Amino acid sequence: MLSKNKIKHFNSLSLNKFRQQHQEFILEGTKSVEELLKSDFTIKEIIATAEWVQQHPLVLKAIPTEVVTDREMQQISQMKTPPGVLALVAIPTVSWKLNQGFTLILDGINDPGNLGTIIRTADWFGIENIVCSHDTVDVYHPKVVQATMGSIFRVNVFYENLESVLIAARQNDVAIYGAVMNGENIFSSDLKFSSALLVIGSESHGIREPLLPLITHPITYPKFGTKAVINSAESLNAAIATALILGIFIPSTQG
Amino acid sequence: MLSKNKIKHFNSLSLNKFRQQHQEFILEGTKSVEELLKSDFTIKEIIATAEWVQQHPLVLKAIPTEVVTDREMQQISQMKTPPGVLALVAIPTVSWKLNQGFTLILDGINDPGNLGTIIRTADWFGIENIVCSHDTVDVYHPKVVQATMGSIFRVNVFYENLESVLIAARQNDVAIYGAVMNGENIFSSDLKFSSALLVIGSESHGIREPLLPLITHPITYPKFGTKAVINSAESLNAAIATALILGIFIPSTQG
Repeated sequence: MLSKNKIKHFNSLSLNKFRQQHQEFILEGTKSVEELLKSDFTIKEIIATAEWVQQHPLVLKAIPTEVVTDREMQQISQMKTPPGVLALVAIPTVSWKLNQGFTLILDGINDPGNLGTIIRTADWFGIENIVCSHDTVDVYHPKVVQATMGSIFRVNVFYENLESVLIAARQNDVAIYGAVMNGENIFSSDLKFSSALLVIGSESHGIREPLLPLITHPITYPKFGTKAVINSAESLNAAIATALILGIFIPSTQG
Repeated sequence: MLSKNKIKHFNSLSLNKFRQQHQEFILEGTKSVEELLKSDFTIKEIIATAEWVQQHPLVLKAIPTEVVTDREMQQISQMKTPPGVLALVAIPTVSWKLNQGFTLILDGINDPGNLGTIIRTADWFGIENIVCSHDTVDVYHPKVVQATMGSIFRVNVFYENLESVLIAARQNDVAIYGAVMNGENIFSSDLKFSSALLVIGSESHGIREPLLPLITHPITYPKFGTKAVINSAESLNAAIATALILGIFIPSTQG
């Protein structure tokens, strides 16, 4: 049976403040837990309903699991329809260091679904590091965790002062690509994957003013269509824009 | 002042059943209403708060607007934080006809945000027609309307029996592309834009069994990355997959 204190503790982790304080986050769902078990993240606890354990006898065979009633699960779950399994996971301590690879930089992405989807897409393209502005939504927000579909275990996500990150990159001759409204057409741009950053801004504000002069390669994903371009979509969802740019960038630089 | 009946009517439109019965849907937000005013959709009514009208004096100058209190807006809005302006719009009567252009086919997309994002992305690529399976979420669902960011006025969305659509396409020598797990690598596929359909299935089920034999060109968007491919994302979000495929398809066929 779950103690009142434990229920309270689990519920507190829906807030970033308490996730930071305890350095823990919650993860729910069969697929996510399966990915967790394959990762090197530290699992503090797994809680599942009797029904879930019965349906997934093999998943947790090596991990001690607290079995609870549906009603108890409802009390600690962060989802409307609890998937029946939930894990308490330690937030890993990682620190960002400018490297010679490719890094995605996110400036002010505040929709949890968008951030999660971007992480999942980055994983598909083999991107290992994402650096976010401090006001980007927390990567351990329940809806972000959910939307990554397990990619959260394979992509490092850091929160840094982006101006400092970009200044350091320039000092080290790292190319800084930035998705802007009137940049060079990405289809005719010179793209390189090693020693490169790609900055994506929010849908509503774009890349913020102080970062713009630091960008060495402003690029734009063009609109297509046979109808007058003026009479079509004015912008793309931030996750879609990221995917489309990576879809040109990565294949063209990885052969 | 809003009558009780009107409040009840507006609230009923959050359900597909009543949207179908009245052939009306609700749209909220400044950007969406601006796009609506530029469209040829029939506006039945616009309701706004006094504060919104004061902040946007020019937007509605030619349209009679009912001005309400914040509290009244709260009663009819379908959003947690009502943006202050709401329109009652007639559902247009359109009927699908196989044509010589490019049509996107959606099989069982049930997440409203995904459908809305797909419509917005299709609009960016100049795609005018989308045909959905009957179990795809309703295009006038408030969250779909919201996520399209106005693209709902420029892309026709139809609901049809997809098996019949694909059979008719084959009889007319229309190429049927389908996003599948083990198809031809899209980067080496022969893509054509005229007289073509592109079928996208749901994340969890893919394209359904009865449709698969009707696909003439099964294609796959490959994974990238330097790490072992086995140890990366297993799938993409449905809207991202659609965008990535269109991002190869459209530019390569429109030159």
